[in-house]
Amino acid sequence: MIIGVLGGGQLGRMLAMAALPLGVRTRFLDTSPEAPAAAVGELVVGDAADPAVMARFVRGLSLVTYEFENFSADIVEAAQAHVPVYPPATALRTGQDRLREKTLFADLGINVPAFAPADSEEELTRALARIGTPCVVKTRRMGYDGKGQAVVRTPEDARALWARLGGVPLLVEAFVPFTSEVSIIGVRSLQGEVRTYPLVNNVHVGGILRQSLCPAPGVPAGVEETARAHMSAVLERLEYVGVLAIEFFEVSGRLLANEMAPRVHNSGHWTIEGAHTSQFENHVRAVCGMPLGDTGARGASMMLNIIGEPVDAARRLQMGARVHVHDYGKEPRAGRKVGHLTIVADTPGEIEPVYAPVRG
Amino acid sequence: MIIGVLGGGQLGRMLAMAALPLGVRTRFLDTSPEAPAAAVGELVVGDAADPAVMARFVRGLSLVTYEFENFSADIVEAAQAHVPVYPPATALRTGQDRLREKTLFADLGINVPAFAPADSEEELTRALARIGTPCVVKTRRMGYDGKGQAVVRTPEDARALWARLGGVPLLVEAFVPFTSEVSIIGVRSLQGEVRTYPLVNNVHVGGILRQSLCPAPGVPAGVEETARAHMSAVLERLEYVGVLAIEFFEVSGRLLANEMAPRVHNSGHWTIEGAHTSQFENHVRAVCGMPLGDTGARGASMMLNIIGEPVDAARRLQMGARVHVHDYGKEPRAGRKVGHLTIVADTPGEIEPVYAPVRG
Repeated sequence: MIIGVLGGGQLGRMLAMAALPLGVRTRFLDTSPEAPAAAVGELVVGDAADPAVMARFVRGLSLVTYEFENFSADIVEAAQAHVPVYPPATALRTGQDRLREKTLFADLGINVPAFAPADSEEELTRALARIGTPCVVKTRRMGYDGKGQAVVRTPEDARALWARLGGVPLLVEAFVPFTSEVSIIGVRSLQGEVRTYPLVNNVHVGGILRQSLCPAPGVPAGVEETARAHMSAVLERLEYVGVLAIEFFEVSGRLLANEMAPRVHNSGHWTIEGAHTSQFENHVRAVCGMPLGDTGARGASMMLNIIGEPVDAARRLQMGARVHVHDYGKEPRAGRKVGHLTIVADTPGEIEPVYAPVRG
Repeated sequence: MIIGVLGGGQLGRMLAMAALPLGVRTRFLDTSPEAPAAAVGELVVGDAADPAVMARFVRGLSLVTYEFENFSADIVEAAQAHVPVYPPATALRTGQDRLREKTLFADLGINVPAFAPADSEEELTRALARIGTPCVVKTRRMGYDGKGQAVVRTPEDARALWARLGGVPLLVEAFVPFTSEVSIIGVRSLQGEVRTYPLVNNVHVGGILRQSLCPAPGVPAGVEETARAHMSAVLERLEYVGVLAIEFFEVSGRLLANEMAPRVHNSGHWTIEGAHTSQFENHVRAVCGMPLGDTGARGASMMLNIIGEPVDAARRLQMGARVHVHDYGKEPRAGRKVGHLTIVADTPGEIEPVYAPVRG
């Protein structure tokens, strides 16, 4: 079986490595001939919007999936004319649009920060008045790693932001003074089997994930069960197939859904060594219609991103005998994720976080 | 860094998959364009004895290692003219020759079955008289998966075997009525760091490994420590670099060394999911001069080879949520290893062996 993956970054590479032992080969479509996934899978270099490229890409594939969500839904439709695409287009459209996302969460009874869309400067002014300041203003589409969003404190900030972002549709959200940031990864298979991973604690700096901890420290009892229930509800509603990530703000034990990603997610990288089955393997199993693997944790884990500096495995491994290095084979550039480390231990007490996981 | 690997079978593929996250690329030399390792690494197809092929293979490599040991030591010397080769040539020569192997074990005070070389039909007759029957007669070189050996009960058997094997040098060994078969994997790095994995129990059928269990059931206290000490002694004596496997017969708690393999080994496949660091990753770390990873077990594991039948991951995964499938991407043929399963559990009691691990 050969499966196609839109995007050939590190997520694609880790999918390819998980797929191979299952007898599943991978083909990636990426605009760059340097795509990291090419180290394991076939690579088609080109623009997915070009019908000739798409035709070349889908030839002989059993299905198509994706490892990033910032591409036009037209591309999914083009692929779908040839082969099934998982996760489904509805999930992609929801994950691409912060308004749809928040609306879905609210519909399912999942708490979210107060939010209001703003498609014009007047709407922005009105939304600001309704939500109050400080608030967070985000582009509805194409945001990632903290890009396309800013904290707004005054109406002047808002007007300047409107001009800077070029008048694209925005979403205004209440600023949440969170206790911690947590996320959950879930997976639903073609057959409808659902499994969820344990809740993890995340620390972002400058909008970029730096550290994930499993189990999530300082989270009151019952919160993890709530997050698992929310994940299952979203998976079922979207008739989802594959891995989904949802990020929450945790405010004194109350969860507010922040965003979802319809793909394998950086906050699930710890699962390679820290869970019985990695998010990458379970994504492949799910889209290929195979039984899902155990999502339980194996001890405690800490994932640390390596950003903008050389990976240098030999040096990192000196940190300890249970340190695992993942070098994505990318040239370091400022702000670029080039690798990650996962440190595993039998108990959470043996792991010393690099970043404080909970606000003091 | 790019490392070269002589041989491109499943062991090579698993080495390549372990190397990639460490930022280490792999290039394989194999006579077959269908070599499984080509799914992850570069592949040079050709005869290693051809100087032009060797020159093409070694270009730009940092070092050469190997994933099988049945090739001429001349090839190692040819490679060594260009780049370092690990494990060292002495280890390869020892692993290739059952007489050298047994002599090394005996020199280090490691118990072995009584043995005698036989380079002629008369020597065979004398060896038989000295060792007694039944005994096991093996070719000194090029044996694997039970090939090149037979149980001999009478002098007539021995004469027939001599004729059948074509007069190659043989080793006669006492037949060992073992309680169980066990093996140990050890690793020594370029810097001389040594780590050993837990002892595992192996079941062979028709000379081919079928099942490995970690921990090894029914082994009296102290036996594992003895095996670890033997492994360390061999690693040090050979100034070894990389992963080494030693197989023992266990006779009521006494270990008799049977053979060694100067490479990653089938009885160490369980380490991918069952140990903190796999044998493949530790081999790469060792030859690249990186710190070694923790060789401790994570719970209990059972490895089952898939031999001569389709792997069919979807079906195998129905066995349970902690079953892991490794499909080598090979066409099934009678007696051919095409994949393996590893089943992990928190405790040995949760694992039900397919083959009885200890003789009743």
